[in-house]
Amino acid sequence: MRRHRCHRAIRSESDTGSETDAETMKCISCKEEYGSRDAGTCKECYEEASETEQELKREIEHLKAKVAFLRFWSPLDHAQRGPSMAGPFFPDVVLVPSDDGSPGFPPVPVPANKAVLVNRSPVFKAMLENEMEESRSGTIKVSDVSYDALRAFVNYLYTAEACLDEQMACDLLVLAEKYHVKHLKGYCEKFLVSKLNWDNSIMSYAFAHQYNAKLVLDAALCVIIDNMYRLTKREEYIELLEKDPKLVVEIFEAFLSKQVNTAAPKDCSMKS
Amino acid sequence: MRRHRCHRAIRSESDTGSETDAETMKCISCKEEYGSRDAGTCKECYEEASETEQELKREIEHLKAKVAFLRFWSPLDHAQRGPSMAGPFFPDVVLVPSDDGSPGFPPVPVPANKAVLVNRSPVFKAMLENEMEESRSGTIKVSDVSYDALRAFVNYLYTAEACLDEQMACDLLVLAEKYHVKHLKGYCEKFLVSKLNWDNSIMSYAFAHQYNAKLVLDAALCVIIDNMYRLTKREEYIELLEKDPKLVVEIFEAFLSKQVNTAAPKDCSMKS
Repeated sequence: MRRHRCHRAIRSESDTGSETDAETMKCISCKEEYGSRDAGTCKECYEEASETEQELKREIEHLKAKVAFLRFWSPLDHAQRGPSMAGPFFPDVVLVPSDDGSPGFPPVPVPANKAVLVNRSPVFKAMLENEMEESRSGTIKVSDVSYDALRAFVNYLYTAEACLDEQMACDLLVLAEKYHVKHLKGYCEKFLVSKLNWDNSIMSYAFAHQYNAKLVLDAALCVIIDNMYRLTKREEYIELLEKDPKLVVEIFEAFLSKQVNTAAPKDCSMKS
Repeated sequence: MRRHRCHRAIRSESDTGSETDAETMKCISCKEEYGSRDAGTCKECYEEASETEQELKREIEHLKAKVAFLRFWSPLDHAQRGPSMAGPFFPDVVLVPSDDGSPGFPPVPVPANKAVLVNRSPVFKAMLENEMEESRSGTIKVSDVSYDALRAFVNYLYTAEACLDEQMACDLLVLAEKYHVKHLKGYCEKFLVSKLNWDNSIMSYAFAHQYNAKLVLDAALCVIIDNMYRLTKREEYIELLEKDPKLVVEIFEAFLSKQVNTAAPKDCSMKS
């Protein structure tokens, strides 16, 4: 049973024995003294928490090793060799960016393995397992995509990694949505949310709506509502109103709903 | 700047103001009161540690999702379909357990994908990339292995998972060593170390030595040295002495080294 620290502290004021250490309450972590208002945990709980932290770190190391084992080497090196597909990559299918290719130049195919594609995407699975044209020909045409985006897409299916900027994140999100690659879609969404600001919020909102990106949609809506009073002056607003007035209505509905739910709205009030 | 808790506590003994809460030092985590000898951390450090824990947990979730994305479906289902290799697995190579197969029955091949094999094992990589017999024929003969172990081995290359008992852990460790699959070898070693006891320590020691399993070797040696006084009576000891006396010498050398390094050996002393 633990003794009340306060009693011990008072006793130690008069005593000059071995218990003088009881006068101080020192944080094990930062080594500073602290009062009861700043009390965190007892030693036992601190030690338990430290053990938990160590366990979590071991779990992370374990998972990182598993990821390193499971990920493939990037097929980019192989893809860069061009359509000859020679080499150690053993591809049995190519993806062709059907709307790419400069005039006079045929589009460059991206080689891949059927086994990887069907494993990562239910759309490729249905396509390749059901003896469709793609399976017979070993060629999958992918429309409305640049070679770079398609290559990055295939690379992600092998490595779960992608080098993103905003354009690439949008391109990959579109492909992820089309081929139902949830993990990649989440990855792109998180990136786009991290890049959200007032300037790109309306475009992001419309884009997220089109490609069913709930995370981006909600975050963009928040930014828009927080800047509601200057919304209608934006060029993108006028374009959106022209193109898809229902989407604009959804913004106003969300704004209204927030006002109802918030007793005292802060910076969300519209100029009257 | 934090005030010394002791001073505040003494003042509050005489005061009956708002600072009576200063009389107690309560652990945020277990809610119990504690004294200075049981002091863990201040509030600030506790909160930092909690944040760190949350971050680590998020990292774990992130890595688990990555593992789930990168791992393949188990090819076992496909393997169970037998050597016809029909279906959606798109295999381009088979592994044949060359020493398996009951008399009169041919060994059952395990289908796989070259791309997966070369990615997980530098030995398969060299074998399949260099136009060796295996690459041309699409058949890799694997000697001294049961169908079940070979199937579990191939399954691990796809999923980073295996269902182990001691026999299977040994079988897979042998294959992991042969084909340089470090991740699997570590996995089996950890399992075998967890199962180590006095009864299996000598066998484990010899096995670990043969297959270069340092983790198991060191752990088995520890168990043996801790029971040194009863070592020479064991049947396995006599067998090992017959088969590989150098290995027995290594045990004695390790024992000697421990005695030199330990001022007062506990239960490691040999009966004279």
